[in-house]
Order: sequence, then C-alpha cells, then structure tokens
Amino acid sequence: MQIQKFEAAVIGGGIIGNAIAYYLSAENIQTAVMEANEVGGKTTSAAAGMLGAHSEWEEFKDVYSFVADSHYQYDSLSKQLKETCGIDIELKKGGILNLVFSEEEKRKLEAVMKLPSVQWLSKVEVYKAEKHASQEILGAVYMKDDVHVTPLSACNGFWKGALKNGAQIFEHTMVLEVVQQGTGFLIKTTNNSFYAENVIIACGVWSNKFFSEAGLQHALVPVKGECLSVINDKMPLTKTLFHEKSYIVPRNNNQLVIGATQKWNDWNELPSFGGIQEIMEKAKSLMPEISTMRPHRFWAGLRPQSFDKRPFIGEHPETKGLYFAAGHQRNGILMAPATGMMIRDLLMERSVNKDWVNAFKLDRVEKVAEGKGVLQ
Amino acid sequence: MQIQKFEAAVIGGGIIGNAIAYYLSAENIQTAVMEANEVGGKTTSAAAGMLGAHSEWEEFKDVYSFVADSHYQYDSLSKQLKETCGIDIELKKGGILNLVFSEEEKRKLEAVMKLPSVQWLSKVEVYKAEKHASQEILGAVYMKDDVHVTPLSACNGFWKGALKNGAQIFEHTMVLEVVQQGTGFLIKTTNNSFYAENVIIACGVWSNKFFSEAGLQHALVPVKGECLSVINDKMPLTKTLFHEKSYIVPRNNNQLVIGATQKWNDWNELPSFGGIQEIMEKAKSLMPEISTMRPHRFWAGLRPQSFDKRPFIGEHPETKGLYFAAGHQRNGILMAPATGMMIRDLLMERSVNKDWVNAFKLDRVEKVAEGKGVLQ
Amino acid sequence: MQIQKFEAAVIGGGIIGNAIAYYLSAENIQTAVMEANEVGGKTTSAAAGMLGAHSEWEEFKDVYSFVADSHYQYDSLSKQLKETCGIDIELKKGGILNLVFSEEEKRKLEAVMKLPSVQWLSKVEVYKAEKHASQEILGAVYMKDDVHVTPLSACNGFWKGALKNGAQIFEHTMVLEVVQQGTGFLIKTTNNSFYAENVIIACGVWSNKFFSEAGLQHALVPVKGECLSVINDKMPLTKTLFHEKSYIVPRNNNQLVIGATQKWNDWNELPSFGGIQEIMEKAKSLMPEISTMRPHRFWAGLRPQSFDKRPFIGEHPETKGLYFAAGHQRNGILMAPATGMMIRDLLMERSVNKDWVNAFKLDRVEKVAEGKGVLQ
Amino acid sequence: MQIQKFEAAVIGGGIIGNAIAYYLSAENIQTAVMEANEVGGKTTSAAAGMLGAHSEWEEFKDVYSFVADSHYQYDSLSKQLKETCGIDIELKKGGILNLVFSEEEKRKLEAVMKLPSVQWLSKVEVYKAEKHASQEILGAVYMKDDVHVTPLSACNGFWKGALKNGAQIFEHTMVLEVVQQGTGFLIKTTNNSFYAENVIIACGVWSNKFFSEAGLQHALVPVKGECLSVINDKMPLTKTLFHEKSYIVPRNNNQLVIGATQKWNDWNELPSFGGIQEIMEKAKSLMPEISTMRPHRFWAGLRPQSFDKRPFIGEHPETKGLYFAAGHQRNGILMAPATGMMIRDLLMERSVNKDWVNAFKLDRVEKVAEGKGVLQ
Repeated sequence: MQIQKFEAAVIGGGIIGNAIAYYLSAENIQTAVMEANEVGGKTTSAAAGMLGAHSEWEEFKDVYSFVADSHYQYDSLSKQLKETCGIDIELKKGGILNLVFSEEEKRKLEAVMKLPSVQWLSKVEVYKAEKHASQEILGAVYMKDDVHVTPLSACNGFWKGALKNGAQIFEHTMVLEVVQQGTGFLIKTTNNSFYAENVIIACGVWSNKFFSEAGLQHALVPVKGECLSVINDKMPLTKTLFHEKSYIVPRNNNQLVIGATQKWNDWNELPSFGGIQEIMEKAKSLMPEISTMRPHRFWAGLRPQSFDKRPFIGEHPETKGLYFAAGHQRNGILMAPATGMMIRDLLMERSVNKDWVNAFKLDRVEKVAEGKGVLQ
Repeated sequence: MQIQKFEAAVIGGGIIGNAIAYYLSAENIQTAVMEANEVGGKTTSAAAGMLGAHSEWEEFKDVYSFVADSHYQYDSLSKQLKETCGIDIELKKGGILNLVFSEEEKRKLEAVMKLPSVQWLSKVEVYKAEKHASQEILGAVYMKDDVHVTPLSACNGFWKGALKNGAQIFEHTMVLEVVQQGTGFLIKTTNNSFYAENVIIACGVWSNKFFSEAGLQHALVPVKGECLSVINDKMPLTKTLFHEKSYIVPRNNNQLVIGATQKWNDWNELPSFGGIQEIMEKAKSLMPEISTMRPHRFWAGLRPQSFDKRPFIGEHPETKGLYFAAGHQRNGILMAPATGMMIRDLLMERSVNKDWVNAFKLDRVEKVAEGKGVLQ
Repeated sequence: MQIQKFEAAVIGGGIIGNAIAYYLSAENIQTAVMEANEVGGKTTSAAAGMLGAHSEWEEFKDVYSFVADSHYQYDSLSKQLKETCGIDIELKKGGILNLVFSEEEKRKLEAVMKLPSVQWLSKVEVYKAEKHASQEILGAVYMKDDVHVTPLSACNGFWKGALKNGAQIFEHTMVLEVVQQGTGFLIKTTNNSFYAENVIIACGVWSNKFFSEAGLQHALVPVKGECLSVINDKMPLTKTLFHEKSYIVPRNNNQLVIGATQKWNDWNELPSFGGIQEIMEKAKSLMPEISTMRPHRFWAGLRPQSFDKRPFIGEHPETKGLYFAAGHQRNGILMAPATGMMIRDLLMERSVNKDWVNAFKLDRVEKVAEGKGVLQ
Repeated sequence: MQIQKFEAAVIGGGIIGNAIAYYLSAENIQTAVMEANEVGGKTTSAAAGMLGAHSEWEEFKDVYSFVADSHYQYDSLSKQLKETCGIDIELKKGGILNLVFSEEEKRKLEAVMKLPSVQWLSKVEVYKAEKHASQEILGAVYMKDDVHVTPLSACNGFWKGALKNGAQIFEHTMVLEVVQQGTGFLIKTTNNSFYAENVIIACGVWSNKFFSEAGLQHALVPVKGECLSVINDKMPLTKTLFHEKSYIVPRNNNQLVIGATQKWNDWNELPSFGGIQEIMEKAKSLMPEISTMRPHRFWAGLRPQSFDKRPFIGEHPETKGLYFAAGHQRNGILMAPATGMMIRDLLMERSVNKDWVNAFKLDRVEKVAEGKGVLQ
C-alpha cells in the first residue's frame, strides 16, 4: 500500500483547519485535512458565529489589527464562496446591541464607544431599533459593524473552497501519531498513514496531545459553552442582543441562538440541566418575550483556552515544518480567516506582522507558570 | 366503492380509544378505530404514566372504586399483553414518594395516609429508600402501590391486542362528520366513509366538535402540560418523586421524565421556554442532583378537562348508539382499562356500577353553568 | 369575551395563506391567519422549492403568464423580505439540468427548448457544468432561469412581512366552522371565535371540508410525496438535477434534497419504507456518487390536486366575501406570489387577467364529472 | 492535585467494559471505567442485541461452551439487574427464524439443526408461527433459545450494577496514554490522571492504539454495520427473522431493527446511502410487508474484528496487570457476560477453562501473517 504524500497536512477539520487548507490550497500547495469525526462537527458547529470585534474588545485590544483584518476578510469571502462554491456563509449584518443595565456597566464600555462605528443608544433609541429588548435597560452600545455568520456554513465554505482548489479532506480519520521522517512527517491515523512536508496542528482543545508530544508545555483548557435555540414566532429580531458574554443571535431559519455558559476545564461535550437553566434565566433578562417562544434544541461545545487567552499560531521553535494553530477560545470563527492567512504566510516565508508573531508564538511557554492564575 | 361496516367505531386512537377497542373486540364485536394522526401520538405519548390512585386521591375519592379497579387491571393486562402480543407495557413498581416539605403539607395528606399501602417515611427513612431526594424535606408519604407504565407501550399493547382480536385501526383518517343513518351512523372521513351501528367518541379535547354536533353543551378545556426528560448518568432512581402535581418518573431507558405544567385553555401543542423553565426549577427542588444531568427532550400535551374534572363516559341521552368517553384530564392512562370495560358493558347492556354511571353521565350538563368557576 | 374582528381572515398558514396575508396587509387590509398547527409545518416545509416554470412546462403552458409572473416576483421579494424582515428566502440561482437519457425523451422536450433561456447541452457540456451528473445521459435541457428557494424560509418571509404590515397570525388554532353572519362570517375555532368580512380558504388538501360546506362539489385529492435528504461531503452540486418529476436540489446547508414520489389519494403524512426506496433508486440513476453520501432525514407531504391539476382561486359564485385559494398541487411555492396578488386584486375589485380568472374559477365544477379520468 | 487510585481500571465504557466492571466490583475490587464519550454510545448502541448462539453457530462452534455459558448468564442477569437496579434489559424470548430459500441453504444448516432446541419448520409451520415471513421460503430453521436484549439497556444494567457495587464510571474521559509505574499503571486522560494496579483495555476497534503501544502486533479491523429501524403499524412480529447475516429484530417499542451491512475496514461511523439501500432491499425479501411501514432512524457502528474473528481476552504475555478484552466482532452483546467473568477470574487468579484461554490469548499473534486472507 502506497502512502499518499502532501506538501501540507492539517490535523483538525474545524473552521481553523479548513480556513488554513483554503488559503494554502489557493497557492497551489498540495494540502490534506485529517478530521477524526465530521468537518465542523464539534466546537465550530456549537458556536454562535458573532464576529464581535468590538463586543470582545477588552480581550482583543492588543491584537486588534489581527482581529479587524480577519473580520474584514469575511466580506469578500462571502462573495467569493458564493460564486465559486455556491455556498452562502449567511453573513448577517444588523450589528450587536450591547445592552447596558447600569451606569457602572456603561462606564466600563467607554473605551469601546470611542471606536468608529460604535455608538451609544438611549433606551428610546434602542426600542426604536429593536422592540424585543428588555424594558430594564439604561440604553445600549450599538456596534454596528459586528455581524455574524452561520459557523458551519462558513466552515463548509472553506471546506468546499479548499476542495475546489485541489485539497483533500479525510473525515473519520483520527490521527494517532505524527513522527518526523526525513525532511517531513509520517502521520499515522486509524485508517491509513500519510506523509507530509509540513504539518499544522489545528484541532482545538484536542491539540494538547500534540503539544505534549512536541515537547511544548502548553495545555489548552476546555471552557465548555452550553447553548439553546428557540423558534421565534414573533417579529424577527434584527440585531444580536449581548450582555456580559451572553447573547441572543437571530438566525435566518427563524431560530434564535442563546448562549453561552463558561465552564472551565469541563470536558463533557453535552449540555447540563443546570447550564441550560443558567442561560435561559439570562436570556429572559435580555428579551423577556422569549418566555413564550418554543425551545428547539440544546447543545454544547468546548472552547480551547490558553493561559493568556490568545491562540498559539506559529512554527515549532525547533522542529521545522511543524505548526500549531489552536487556542482561539470564543473567537475561532472571527479569527479563522486571519489565522489561515498567517499560517499560509509563515509556511511560504512571506512577511508577517511582527506583533502578531510575538503575540501568538509557541515559545511564550515560560509565561505559563506565572500566568497560571489567569487561566479562569 | 363499498362502505365498510362495523358494529362499533371508535373515534380517537389514543389510549382511551384503543382500550375500548381492545375490550369490545375481545367480545367479538366488530370494531374499528379512526385516528386522525398516529396511534397514541398526542396526549397519550405526552403522559408520564403514573398510576397514581393515591397521589391523586383528592381528586378521586368519590369515584375511588372506579380508579382502584382500573389500577388493578394493569397487573393482569401486563401479563396478558406480553403473552398474546409480545408487548411489555413496562409496568414499573417501586411506588411514589410524595415529598413533604412542611407540617402543613403533611397535614393535608393525613387522609391519604390512612389508606392501606400508604405510609409516612421520616427524612432518614426516605434517604435510605432513595438517595436522590432533596435534603430539604420533612419526610415523605410513600404510596407503595402507585406504580407507572410507559404510556405509549400501554397504548400499543391495547392496539396490538385489539388487532389480534380482529379489530381494524385506521391511522391518518380524520373524521369530518358523523351522521345518523338508519339504526346506525355514517362516518365521513378525509379518506373513506364508514358505517357503524355504534359510535364511541374518544378523542380527548378534540371531542368538543362532536359534543357540539350532538347537541350537548359540554366543552372540554385543554390543560396543557409541558415535560422534559434527562439522561440519568448516576445511580438509578427507583421511586417516583412527587410534590404538588410535579414529578420525576424513572423510565427503563435511563431517562427521568419531569413534569408537568398546568396551562389552562392553552391549545398550543408545543412546549414554551417559560414552561420548561418552570418545571426545571421545580425538579431541582425535588432532586438537586438533576442539575448535573443531561437534558434530553422536551414536549407538551393537552389534557382534556371537564367542568368537574371527571370524564364523560356514557351513552347519549337521546341518540341511541352514540357514546362518549373523553375528559380524563391527567388520569387517562390510569383510567383507560376501567373506561374500556365500562363502555363495553354499557354497549353490551351488562350491569354497570350505578355510582360510576352517575358520576360520568353525559347529561350532568346543567352543572356546567354553576360549576364554571371550578374549571381552573 | 369580545370577538376579534378583521377585514380578511385567511384559513391556512402555509405559503399560500401567508402570501395572501402579506399582499392584503400591504394594502392596510386588517388581516388574520388561522393555522391549525404551525406556520408552514405541513405541505410547505415538505416541498423542495424548485421554481420550475420551465421544468413543469407541460402542465403550465395554458397559464404560463400566471406562472411566469409569479416566478418573476421572487426576485424583488427576495430583496424586500431581506430588507424589511431580515429574512433571506435563500433564492438560489444555477438553473435546472433536465437530464435526458434517450432520443425519445429529448423529442418530448422540444417545445420547452424553444423558450428563451432554455438550451440543449451535450453530454460533454453537462459534465463541464456539473460533474455529479450520471454518465448514462445523452445530454440535458438546461433551464437556466429555473431557480429554487427554501420553502419554509419563503413562507417565513411572507409571515414576518405580514406581521410587519400589521396582520395577526394565530397558530394552533383549528377552524371548526365558518358561518355567514351579517355581511361577513363568524369563524369558530378550537380556541376563540373571530369575525371577518372576507374569508379566504387556503389550507391545501384540508380545504375539502370547506368546499363541501360551501356547497361546492370539489374534492382535492392528496398526492403524497416522499423525500429524503443527504449530506454532501463532496464538491457542491451547483445545479438542480431533474428527470421525470424526480430531482436532486442542493440546499445551502450542504444538504441535497431528493424527491419525490407521487402517491395518489394517500392521506398518510409520513414516508413509507417503499416510497423511500423508490426515490433512492431514482436519485442514484441521476447522480451515482450519491451512494457514498450520508442520508440525513426523510419526510412526506400531501400535495393538493384538483381534477384538472389547476388550483381553485376565486370568489364563491354565490357567497360574496368567501374566497378559495387551494389546489396548487406540486407548484404551491412557485405560484404563491401570483396567488396572493390575485386574491388581493379580486378582494379589492381591481382588474384581474380574464384568462386567469377563467382558468382558476370555482364553478368550473361541471368538468369534474367529465374529467374524472384525468385525476390520476 | 491528588491522583485517584484503583485496583482495576477499565478503558472503554461499552458493554464489554461495563460487564468487566460489574463482575470485578461484585468481588469488592475497586474499579474505574474511563469512557471517551458516553457509556454505550458507540458500537454497543448500534447493535441489534440478538443472542444468536445458534444463528452464528458456524463461527462459534470451536468455542461453543464459552458462548453458551455467556448466553445462559443473561437469564439470571435479567432478574438480578431488575431487582438491584430497577433496569430491565428487555430480554425477549420468541426465538430466531432462520429463513431458508433453497435446498442448498437448508443443507448448510444441517449441523445446526442437530443441536437441541433447534428444529426445522416447513413453510406452513412458519406462517403459523409468524405471518410476516416472506412467501418465497422453503421453510425455516427455528432456533427457539436464541433470544435478544436491548443492547443499551443491557449495558446500562452492567453500568448501574457496577455503580451499586462501588465502581466509578468516568464519561467524557479520553485516555491518552497508559504508562507503567511501580507495580501498576499511570493512566493519563484528557481530564485527570489516574493510577491503577490493573488495566483492562476494552474499547473495541479503538483498542488498536493500545495493542501497538504494548508491543503487540494486532490490528483490529472495523467492520462497519449499517442499520435502519421502522415503526411496525401492523401485527407484532414475534420472532426475529434471520437470513445470511441479515435480520429483522422486534423491539418492545413497536420498532423493528433491520441490519446490517458488513463493510470491511470502513472507519466512517455514519451510515451511507448505498448501505441503507442494501439492507432495505434485503429486509423486503425477508418480510415484504415492511414496504408499507414507516422508516424511523438509521445509524451505523464499527464491529471490531481480529484476524481469526475471535476476541482477544487475556493478560499481556510480559506486562503483568495489563489485560485486553476486545475484538468481539458481531457478538459483543452475546459474549459480554462470559468476557466479564473471564477477566475477573484471570485477574483474581481463579481457574479458567484452558480452551478459552488458548482460543483468546493475546500471543496468538504469529497467526496473523498466515491468516491474513481470512480477514474479510
């Protein structure tokens, strides 16, 4: 049996892995993706898909250019993927209404409000824009550029785009071991073995095994998020409602996606009774009318979180050709395009923004010890 | 096209209709059941299946002999249906623990505690019997004869038993009109028309149309109940936990069924966000450990409620051959055997307990006006 | 209890009923929709959504202007509904490839090929356009203007648009009887009663009851269609594949919808084992690669068919204010906009194309007797 | 963080792993089970649950005493698990009808027919016993002792029984590595690390990783099986219909389980369109009436197959305390009790039947090379 060879093998078929495959294959790099289950079947499809460059501002501000660049890509991707693959990633504009219930909350959002495209709406203005919002608010910070996509559709867009570019995607192919061989790597899977000149580990919280085998001391921690959807039998919700990491996102299929809990170091991929209760309570406080709607489905996903809440994106400090792109926490959908392009540029030895290289490099490992307490 | 003729046509393929067909066909009466959707697909499959002759004592005490008789039948039915049809109705013993949180609650249950097979358990005794119960209780009233069945299995048992007896069941056959013709009735359906000497209306809250067309002033009101199931990944729950019409019933498939809300005059057959929240809150108070379990499914059903909360079981006061058996409210599963036998006996002109005839007769209609306030 | 009054009440909340409500309410006519289950929950959501003005040419040719007009509306509706309600009806262009397996089949399609925007593609040209097509074909007739929408999204668009226009939609409200009262109608439902000046019956095959009560001799016959969807884990299918009433339609969510059987006078709303087998066999002949894909879901729906396969759209010949809009058979999605506009124009006494009025009028009843044989 | 210690750790929470935990914990051995997903969630719940000691006679005859012993255990387990845990494993008697369509087929079954409790039924006798069987048969071999259980219920029974015995079950705990440490093993998982004196690998086809790390040359091959269930709206099927590895098994919930394909070395855990077609075709040949029933659900599972189709059950030849119990192919449900007892006896150094030890020992590895051709 002959072993298939590739220039690049991406381990992990979520949105990060598929975005990488999309950008690599667009450069005629022979690329394969190995996915243990189905494409986009885990964390990706559990996500709500907010492209919250502003609503997540506190966490992003140091690497805002990376985030803003990624956000910006979705506009052209949306058109491209529709034209070339017939896939609509369901980019929905309308913006995010960050509801504000007190003066103190308002104060905390002052920095964000100074950004262009972000503005304060009074209570009256909020209701004019969105009748579904709670009557208890003071007002809202309106982030009109923060939009959302349907995560699985976006992932499917990258997948089909990569296929069109000539990449190969292997589902139900669990990678057991990656062994250095010659100038490249032998990739042993449950099924066949493959050979690749470059390997990119992009399997979220399940990347830990590879960090450890590569001698890196990182451990991504799963931060489990639990979600619920309801059928909206009332007027459409036109804007995402957001408050302190909770949200209600309107989908095109008449569903509202409600999320999400934050359960640190919980590996259970299924939602809990208590977690669902928690987000229901919260959702009702953002949009009381939700109480009369019909619940539809609940689910959970594991966000991969690093010690400093930033992803690892870069080449192994010693092993040439071994890359990691994992740890995007709650922002994998938002950061997928920029991550794919950064891996492409690193692999092709094109120039990459120094700040990004530094912010995401793999050997910021020493900080783990110091930063341990930050993890939660 | 020739019209099929039957001695008895039952309109409604829930557990009441199928129990009637089972007992009629056992007497070699040629019987048909017309069901607009699927057998047992509505209120029957939404039920939890508690045979709560004692837990519902307050409502039953005047017709306790009817209820007790019905309850008793399930023992032999369970064996019979297993032998003749290979169907296990999943009769589960273990009893009901009616949790008691205060002296006042305990006082209200004094009458029930005097019944044989009902006893008081102290807090310590409760935990010995069932470790899952809340730590907040004073104790519990243990109704050890109150068992449960899986409602759809019981309904399927009657269905298959009736088939074996020679009855015919027509699913997806909505009855549009029942017209007197000769000594019997022409039954017009979406599909074909049928003729039957006797017609029994047994379609729960959807019987209203037939009450009205038969000149009876009754109106059953739907009392919607919303339920949720969870997967029990802990020790099995061996007894049903019960408190003020809320309950947690253990199913054989490792699921716990949690119910139920009481929404008066709500015709919406789907659960609401608020209703699910309500029963989750309640379930957590009965069994705190449920909070870590995994929710599985939610649903709703419409209980058919009469003005005095008792079913109508009897022949039309003027139209010979036209029977009703509807309005069993929360107790259709429990009362199905006795209802089936009573209709059989009325139709065959056998003697029937006078108290039952009086309690359930169709022309207790004048009370509607007086009793209006009782409805909720 | 006061009875709510409307200028127009539409009975039936599928795509036809909601389109009517949309166009009526846009003219400030106070409109209500009564739906026994959920909006779009039956025939509408079972449909594939092909707007096949050409692929269904044989059936349409006499009323082609009506069909073409309806088809044309979807372009502007798509934009309007996105802007006003944020709902994307998922209008997908790409056209239909009517696969042709023999010279004889090709000959039958000659008339269609003469239409503008329809063209013959040779086998080689077909593969260039769509690699998934069977290798057994002679070629294909490419109907490039025949597009598709997601039927439930289109129905939701009309629903939410009507809501925005001020209409009221009552789900879980089964109409029991419509009684003339004064200049209008009393509408008795399971829940409340309503009063309306005009009533429009638009509940597909379930309209029979109202035809009969209105003294019309029509009987719509259900032509059951069974469908299956698969997950496409290969390259996207960009065009609908079509052959003799069977089809494979690509949806945005990476699913392919395969349909449909034609079961005359079958009221069972659930798919059968044999029906699913039949469409699987057919789909494999259109697109052999489907064999390795993953089946996802199966379902069925009841198409309402009249004696001459045309809908009834018009006012009752004697009862002023009573309208019917039912019997659209396989083409309800396609004809919904024109049907909604025609009912609006009739009700507002605007001029309506005479040919359409004649083709769809309610008193073409005498033909039923002659045409009986046509029904299948 | 302190590491939890156990006397025995079972890796794999399917029916084999849980049976082992059940029998070990019954001897007061402190036992843990680590399951990467949910208990019984993969191959176990995909199984049909036939206890086919006779229908699988050809494959078993050399180890018939092991199989017969295991089969026999289910009778007492059924009672025990009901009493101690309230779990009914749904042991259904009725036997298997191995349909025979030709004299040649009949000849092949002659050896089985000589076994006690197995008998030949003529065509007429078959119909008397089971009206659903095909009219095309010559007769059937009736294996009246071959019964079935609901696999997930049986697995749940072992699970809950083990819990009652004091065992601990860790779901969502993927074992990354097992490292010898002192006299026992350190077990590193995605979540925590554990320590155990004995480790038993019992994770079906996913055991390969551990075989390889333990220096054993085995490779279990997945033989994928695809299944479908239908709702039986006719008379109950009382006996399992069987023919050449295809079957129709009646479940208590009114469903018939149809299986199964045999796809060698297919790691895809989801059913394929082609596979479902194949079993539908086959099922129709066994029971033509199935064609009018309603399909319900389809699924797939991976059977773990060794080179000689027998499981590996035994201790590692060199590493004391490391056991394997994997490779039960299509017979994991049937063999679970005997496997659990054998592991218990080996670990407790009780005497074990020599033939079984030999048949299942881990170092029958050299035969792999010779036997290669047998694999399919």
